[in-house]
Amino acid sequence: MSPIIAKSSRVRSTPFTSRIEKYGVQAYTVYNHMLLPASIKGVEEDYYHLKENVQLWDVSAERQVQIQGPDASQLTQLITCRDLSQAKDHVCYYAPIVDDQGRILNDPLVMKVKPDTWWISIADTDVLLYAKGIAIGKGFDVKITEPNINPLAVQGPKSFELMRRVFGADILNLKFFHFKNFQFDNHNFIIARSGWSKQGGFEIYVDDDQKGQDLYDALMKNGTDLNVRPGCPNLIERIESGLLSYGNDMDINDNPLECGLDAFVSFNPEINYLGKSVLEKQHAQGVKKSLIGLIINLPQISVTKHLPISLNDEQIGELRSACYSPHFQKCIGIAMIQKTKQKLHQPFTVNLDGQTVEVEMTKFPFIK
Amino acid sequence: MSPIIAKSSRVRSTPFTSRIEKYGVQAYTVYNHMLLPASIKGVEEDYYHLKENVQLWDVSAERQVQIQGPDASQLTQLITCRDLSQAKDHVCYYAPIVDDQGRILNDPLVMKVKPDTWWISIADTDVLLYAKGIAIGKGFDVKITEPNINPLAVQGPKSFELMRRVFGADILNLKFFHFKNFQFDNHNFIIARSGWSKQGGFEIYVDDDQKGQDLYDALMKNGTDLNVRPGCPNLIERIESGLLSYGNDMDINDNPLECGLDAFVSFNPEINYLGKSVLEKQHAQGVKKSLIGLIINLPQISVTKHLPISLNDEQIGELRSACYSPHFQKCIGIAMIQKTKQKLHQPFTVNLDGQTVEVEMTKFPFIK
Repeated sequence: MSPIIAKSSRVRSTPFTSRIEKYGVQAYTVYNHMLLPASIKGVEEDYYHLKENVQLWDVSAERQVQIQGPDASQLTQLITCRDLSQAKDHVCYYAPIVDDQGRILNDPLVMKVKPDTWWISIADTDVLLYAKGIAIGKGFDVKITEPNINPLAVQGPKSFELMRRVFGADILNLKFFHFKNFQFDNHNFIIARSGWSKQGGFEIYVDDDQKGQDLYDALMKNGTDLNVRPGCPNLIERIESGLLSYGNDMDINDNPLECGLDAFVSFNPEINYLGKSVLEKQHAQGVKKSLIGLIINLPQISVTKHLPISLNDEQIGELRSACYSPHFQKCIGIAMIQKTKQKLHQPFTVNLDGQTVEVEMTKFPFIK
Repeated sequence: MSPIIAKSSRVRSTPFTSRIEKYGVQAYTVYNHMLLPASIKGVEEDYYHLKENVQLWDVSAERQVQIQGPDASQLTQLITCRDLSQAKDHVCYYAPIVDDQGRILNDPLVMKVKPDTWWISIADTDVLLYAKGIAIGKGFDVKITEPNINPLAVQGPKSFELMRRVFGADILNLKFFHFKNFQFDNHNFIIARSGWSKQGGFEIYVDDDQKGQDLYDALMKNGTDLNVRPGCPNLIERIESGLLSYGNDMDINDNPLECGLDAFVSFNPEINYLGKSVLEKQHAQGVKKSLIGLIINLPQISVTKHLPISLNDEQIGELRSACYSPHFQKCIGIAMIQKTKQKLHQPFTVNLDGQTVEVEMTKFPFIK
């Protein structure tokens, strides 16, 4: 018997928990002190369904850290290595959060929702406490809160048709990583064309529990013929698509350059953020390790901790996430490997956590 | 079917996970991004066993935030409302972490392990990120890390005999909330007489995975006749004993005075910490709400979110944790109630999350 998840107030339920439990949910993880479904009918069955249909994802656990006030822009820029100086309204920015050594603390989407108000849509660490610490230490004039926003993602190829039915045709004009207000039942919802899959879709920022539940029910009702059902971020799909997971593929011991996030690291002399000089130096010298894709010649795999990879008795890196990929009919994974030990597209034999296996290193993403 | 917990590297396993899974574990929660057992054989069976015997608790999830360097003492004092100026070596201090509004962010044990090195043994929030933010903002000369320390608690009335057998008779001289180095298999372990139960016991700060596993096995082997087995923090025992749980009974919307932690709030004019002026004002004026015990006339109860409590259609507070208590043969709980609405030891009828029930307010702890 697999251990069940123990519920308590500390591991928060969401406005959608009762609905997905009524439908049936097989497994949860905990993310930002909140329940996040990890499997509805099984990871592989969910994967096939997601790639063909449309799913509603209760991603309430993607909490928003709201930074508001005269110094909000200064603080938000200081803690992220991406240049936000030209940030436009209605656009989402993938912006790693860094410390004074340039190490990565989180990899959120950042949105300027008002001229003096930012939302940081976080991965699983308490960015609120970090931002609060910096703000207190620097004496910034900001208010940092976690508003009651519970994102609901609509993902999959049929998400466009479903969202059109519920929000109207204008939703189809929303560009990738843009967001705008849309109405349902006389309520405004901020909706972004985004989501943690590459199957297309939207994220709805639900700021009213009851309206959100009504919307959930309407999406389920309007999507019957589209085969809509609850879903959740899918391990297989996200690895095939090369979507990194903070806490799995990267953590506080890595920096954004080592994670291949160079495009989101600004070296603009006008921009001031923590750890910039360290990242500049690393950028000039080149990183010593980096994340790469790994094709693993095993029939199946389950990774619940970073698995050491050795070559000729020397540890060259570690496997951080992996799954069996139905698309490639092989196991694939994400590994942090010493730069000097990387050789792409050549099968070779390593020792993976004590097991001798043939692997092949490759670039991200596995599927473009 | 109750949902299972999905495993991944992000929800970290511990050096003891394989052992407790081999023995059998019924439920997990996630605490500081790590697995924390919540039930081994069932919460009530675990409760009876704990009160009579001895249990090994894998509380690796009680992570240590290590603050080291010339400014370590200044930073540690700044973020906690307890006076640490007279902190002695070898003593644990329960010391709430606060923000600049005096709100509570965590309720750890704090230990000075060297003159320039503090360990903050945290509840479930990223105190490391908060401390890091403050340190960066203030320009403090400190190094803040999470060392690979995995606490193992030995709890229950027979814990003294078991620990004597393994560490020698000197362990019995350790006073409550004191810690000292003890040897096992030529390895030094910091051991405190502490733990999150009132049944007596110790917490062993394991800094070497292999040595810790050997110790675990030795404790199991030496305790056969003491009926030793794996256990975990127990919902019933901790509520009966009035042990508060951060994230359940208190959170960032409360301050330590509202949580009855007055004894750990310093008003010493020599001491400087964040939010002190706010707490001084609250202390002078009196708090508007506070935590109290609630005896609830229901045959059983399960609390997975804060449940509103209303009296004559007016909300007077909320129930934050509760359980059926075998000791009282009634349901008991911990509630945050408006000060003006508190009346002790008088049964009266309230509306609890839509249900009409008779309750009685009482002081902590239920069992002294």
